[in-house]
Amino acid sequence: MNIPDLTDTALEQRLQSKLDNKTKPLGSLGRIEALALQLGLIQGSETPELLQPQLVVFAADHGLAARGVSAYPSDVTWQMVENFLAGGAAVSVLARQHCLALTVVDCGVAREIAPRAGLLSRRIGAGTADSLAGPAMTSDQCARAIANGQEIVGQLPGNALLLGEMGIGNTSAASLLLSRLTGYPLAECVGAGTGLDEAGVQRKREVLQQVLALHERAGTPLEALAAFGGFEIATMVGAVLQAAAQRRVIVADGFISTAAVLVAQRLAPHVTQRCVFSHRSGEYGHALMLRQLGPGAQEPARALLDLGLRLGEGSGAALAWPLLVSACALMREMASFESAGVSGPQSSPAV
Amino acid sequence: MNIPDLTDTALEQRLQSKLDNKTKPLGSLGRIEALALQLGLIQGSETPELLQPQLVVFAADHGLAARGVSAYPSDVTWQMVENFLAGGAAVSVLARQHCLALTVVDCGVAREIAPRAGLLSRRIGAGTADSLAGPAMTSDQCARAIANGQEIVGQLPGNALLLGEMGIGNTSAASLLLSRLTGYPLAECVGAGTGLDEAGVQRKREVLQQVLALHERAGTPLEALAAFGGFEIATMVGAVLQAAAQRRVIVADGFISTAAVLVAQRLAPHVTQRCVFSHRSGEYGHALMLRQLGPGAQEPARALLDLGLRLGEGSGAALAWPLLVSACALMREMASFESAGVSGPQSSPAV
Repeated sequence: MNIPDLTDTALEQRLQSKLDNKTKPLGSLGRIEALALQLGLIQGSETPELLQPQLVVFAADHGLAARGVSAYPSDVTWQMVENFLAGGAAVSVLARQHCLALTVVDCGVAREIAPRAGLLSRRIGAGTADSLAGPAMTSDQCARAIANGQEIVGQLPGNALLLGEMGIGNTSAASLLLSRLTGYPLAECVGAGTGLDEAGVQRKREVLQQVLALHERAGTPLEALAAFGGFEIATMVGAVLQAAAQRRVIVADGFISTAAVLVAQRLAPHVTQRCVFSHRSGEYGHALMLRQLGPGAQEPARALLDLGLRLGEGSGAALAWPLLVSACALMREMASFESAGVSGPQSSPAV
Repeated sequence: MNIPDLTDTALEQRLQSKLDNKTKPLGSLGRIEALALQLGLIQGSETPELLQPQLVVFAADHGLAARGVSAYPSDVTWQMVENFLAGGAAVSVLARQHCLALTVVDCGVAREIAPRAGLLSRRIGAGTADSLAGPAMTSDQCARAIANGQEIVGQLPGNALLLGEMGIGNTSAASLLLSRLTGYPLAECVGAGTGLDEAGVQRKREVLQQVLALHERAGTPLEALAAFGGFEIATMVGAVLQAAAQRRVIVADGFISTAAVLVAQRLAPHVTQRCVFSHRSGEYGHALMLRQLGPGAQEPARALLDLGLRLGEGSGAALAWPLLVSACALMREMASFESAGVSGPQSSPAV
């Protein structure tokens, strides 16, 4: 997929100059200014504006969950989907607070969910296969999941996509993708997920080490995605690619959604120019992912919030959302020194 | 002023238990959970709610500004007050975004501001005296400013106070207060303020060292406040004390407003139980202040955002505000495992 480079030095200079002429000390809005500049570049505009933001929660089950890699049973996936739709989950509450349209996509939950408003059924299967026994999905399933993600985003209104996910076992898939696509040792990529104790993390590491070895030949991003899963991550990869192609602002959540961004970036490097990383997850491997997704080779991506969140669902993306709205509002509405009749800095302080 | 201790172990346990039964992995909302717990304790309620939040910008001028301690001329104070009232400043934009009632208080701006809606005149003088020549204010002026702050907050509706300020030269007053009240060496307490270069910071350090030496006997919190100023900080101290007495949630902004909290805490230690620190300022000394204001002697206060902000005005408090709203909404609206029919963690992971 061809995702063009958004570099536009002339626009960047105009945006920076506009920021510098706002009534505030130079650079005093810190990373909110960098965010405003990024949003301007994504939209190709000196007056960026966020319209009809869409929070999409991609849900699916993982065959590997039966191997005891999670603190919670797989049933929690469909139970939480019901909770999202009933409005009682964290992401439901936060989406209401910030007027984010919330869509849940069944990408392959083990137990089928009854159709209703707010739910899209794009099931590839009743959960992925056990990646300790073979690939989590076939390459055809993987391609269909990606196409689903593209189609879903293509149908959604607005110019911003907030990523969310649900799937018991999906920190395992994200850890495997991270290790395979970046070369970081697996042990560093594995964390407590939803809350394993130290013995549980150790067991998870051992299982994932076996999975990684079994699929040692799955080297390309798509091969790795098919080998490790899951359906929700693959669908999210398609969503990210489509959103990037349409120059939507993409707001990543935590460890799982950032894994989808990582796969998408390996397929189309300029994807990350459209990505805002909402928070630094409490899941350790997330910091390793962010190192790979920065604007330059040496510069890690910096997340907006650092609050020890490790819930997923899109909850971190929703919590950070008002900061993006602020960046646009400041860019559009703040007065300049000239328009407000405010003096600039003294050439040298009066003595 | 008697500010009672809010410690309530029974309520704290009920709040923690309520959080732990929400449909999410234990602790997975990170510091948002600690925030929800704090808001519950402040309000003495398992269902905290924020009503009619008030953002108050305290403005005044500083005689010391004539000594070249700021990158901007004193005229910027009244010009920015005009900008706040006209709706063009950063804090004006952010207050609109978050439906925060915005009040500007003229605590002693050098040039008198024409009366209008949104402005309260509580002038102690046309700026403080030059603290390099004598005390910035008399003890009577200091007492009147504190009383003004108490009276203003006492008249405001709602249960939350967001602190903002404007005053060219006020990072100098805040640095002096920090050093005197905590014993940190002055050099560590002084930063670039609105944007001094390295030579400017060095000059500011030298001037402030002389001011500190001149007032070496100003040892109590009120003596230090009178010696160093400013009128806006003293008025803010009164506002913090009144808000604390009324169990309002107090949202500190950056370096200056936290200096007011520091003075208030020295007068009434339990004030900080009511304080949420919205962000860690780019002004270096702010981290030193936060070390002094934590819940325990060994534990620094942790700010919610860390975005390199150093604007003041209450802009950081306004940017962090939606996180407080989220904490309350999650506490009130999220389903429990039982009510949503979601399974809890497995006693030991299925194998």
